[in-house]
Amino acid sequence: MANSKFDVLCIGNAIVDVIARVEEEFVSRQGLVKGSMNLIDEARAAELYAAMGRATEVSGGSAANTAAGVASLGGRAAYFGKVKADQLGAIFQHDLRSQGVFFETPPAHAGPATAQSFILVTPDSERTMNTYLGACVNFSIHDVDKHVVEASEVTYMEGYLWDRPEAKEAFRLAAQVARQAGRKTAITLSDSFCVERHRDSFLDLIRNDIDIVFANEAEIGSLYQTSDFDSAMRAVAMDCPVAVLTRSEKGCVVVAEGHLQEVPAHPVARVSDVTGAGDLFAAGFLHGLTNGKPLYGCARLGSLAAAEIISHVGARPEVDLRELAEANGLL
Amino acid sequence: MANSKFDVLCIGNAIVDVIARVEEEFVSRQGLVKGSMNLIDEARAAELYAAMGRATEVSGGSAANTAAGVASLGGRAAYFGKVKADQLGAIFQHDLRSQGVFFETPPAHAGPATAQSFILVTPDSERTMNTYLGACVNFSIHDVDKHVVEASEVTYMEGYLWDRPEAKEAFRLAAQVARQAGRKTAITLSDSFCVERHRDSFLDLIRNDIDIVFANEAEIGSLYQTSDFDSAMRAVAMDCPVAVLTRSEKGCVVVAEGHLQEVPAHPVARVSDVTGAGDLFAAGFLHGLTNGKPLYGCARLGSLAAAEIISHVGARPEVDLRELAEANGLL
Repeated sequence: MANSKFDVLCIGNAIVDVIARVEEEFVSRQGLVKGSMNLIDEARAAELYAAMGRATEVSGGSAANTAAGVASLGGRAAYFGKVKADQLGAIFQHDLRSQGVFFETPPAHAGPATAQSFILVTPDSERTMNTYLGACVNFSIHDVDKHVVEASEVTYMEGYLWDRPEAKEAFRLAAQVARQAGRKTAITLSDSFCVERHRDSFLDLIRNDIDIVFANEAEIGSLYQTSDFDSAMRAVAMDCPVAVLTRSEKGCVVVAEGHLQEVPAHPVARVSDVTGAGDLFAAGFLHGLTNGKPLYGCARLGSLAAAEIISHVGARPEVDLRELAEANGLL
Repeated sequence: MANSKFDVLCIGNAIVDVIARVEEEFVSRQGLVKGSMNLIDEARAAELYAAMGRATEVSGGSAANTAAGVASLGGRAAYFGKVKADQLGAIFQHDLRSQGVFFETPPAHAGPATAQSFILVTPDSERTMNTYLGACVNFSIHDVDKHVVEASEVTYMEGYLWDRPEAKEAFRLAAQVARQAGRKTAITLSDSFCVERHRDSFLDLIRNDIDIVFANEAEIGSLYQTSDFDSAMRAVAMDCPVAVLTRSEKGCVVVAEGHLQEVPAHPVARVSDVTGAGDLFAAGFLHGLTNGKPLYGCARLGSLAAAEIISHVGARPEVDLRELAEANGLL
């Protein structure tokens, strides 16, 4: 196997987050389930935006947040995702590239605008996401640069891609290319409603083409249609070499080759906005993995990166994660 | 004089802020004077953005921040300013209107993009601003809705408008309409370099058409070409009915009809980003004034609003300023 050029290639929906703090009442009045990710169309996006208060715009997108996290930890990160050549697309490109992520997916010059996710953060720091996919619908197999996939130690993809048939096809192609090159593949289940929509094909994918699965309790429960965490854990242990199951403040469980390890969460003084917690957990874990750390150390790095992201608004690191990890003795 | 429909009408450059934290070294390497506002062209904007790290986008613009502050304090605020009908323009419109500000200046459908200010925040929380005026260059007398000026108790304008001849003309027209309607006029000197560029015409304006001047130490010193604060204070007392001179953590001095009052600054636990301090000070002061508070109380409200804005990144209030003022016994 050739030397890798990138540690982690992340593939996902390229999104600019529009973040506003709202009262609990706003979420229920809008008919939303708190903590979920909802796909919305352009008309609904306009309606929701008009009802929302002042917001802050920051680059987001689940797998893009992970790529930014890997780069901030000092890893070599690449990203595939589709923006339009508009102002929000320029912001997204800038933020990812300035973090040191290799990002050369050509932007769309026609069609819908760069994707936006209207993120409502309630006083309990929970987030409810409303995503207008916009230009992401143009992401297809033509955007899978095989050379980059072959040159990446791990190809990590977000389950959200499954919501569009063309993106799903691109996802499958990337997984295939990675495995043929002897590389590792990883997936995050993204959201329990997303799992609900695509359960059978997720299971098929995990059983055949994926080395590492990331999921939280709700997602893994949804995948195996059980509310019993232990049952879900046993099931995924049969289906995939490595599963990393996150449980918020209870830490996580790493299931690998039949063994399981519990890893505590990194303490956080004050949780501000949980957006990006899972994305940055994956960044820390994968960075550990591609740097030869044992699984326990990978999970500790993941917990540290997640702790940083939930201490402020927005899902991109605000400090140099490599320095933070070194200060904590994890790198 | 007819009853007013608005307490404060603010007129200024409509700008979206692009805020990044940088090291001291970045500011000097870019050849910038820390704490200043620099006007840049499109090419320089692209160059600076490429050199900057990841950023957060929030609506800004000096007088627009003041309008948002007045509205957050419970006042009736209106705003004139020019955006383009593009994505950043939609963000600017949304954030101001959702705060409750009356903002109906028609956006430009051609010409340069909505203005952006690239704001570099150094570790000492000081900000250095680099403004690409974009669509603001299309602001002209046609955007001065006389009915709104006549219906506003105070018309407040930013000195930055002076940097474009068409905006300056619009500024003069608004001042004239306000005074003919028996309303008050107020101005902020905005920036010492801006005063440097327009000293004579600022002096002429203040002596003839302005009731209330806001300035910090550097600006008032630049206006009267003195480094001695007391001299500057005596000079402005001769030129204008009310001058409010802010001195950062030393508080402010209100000079009115020959008398002066010193007012302490509101304590701040941790200064995060000083962007908008002057804008929000003006919001508090003007809200007090239009609600019949004595000048000392106006300055205390200004200090409180400024303290809130410098405790976080971005120049729009993150809490309900009315509640904050009530909790502090100022409203």
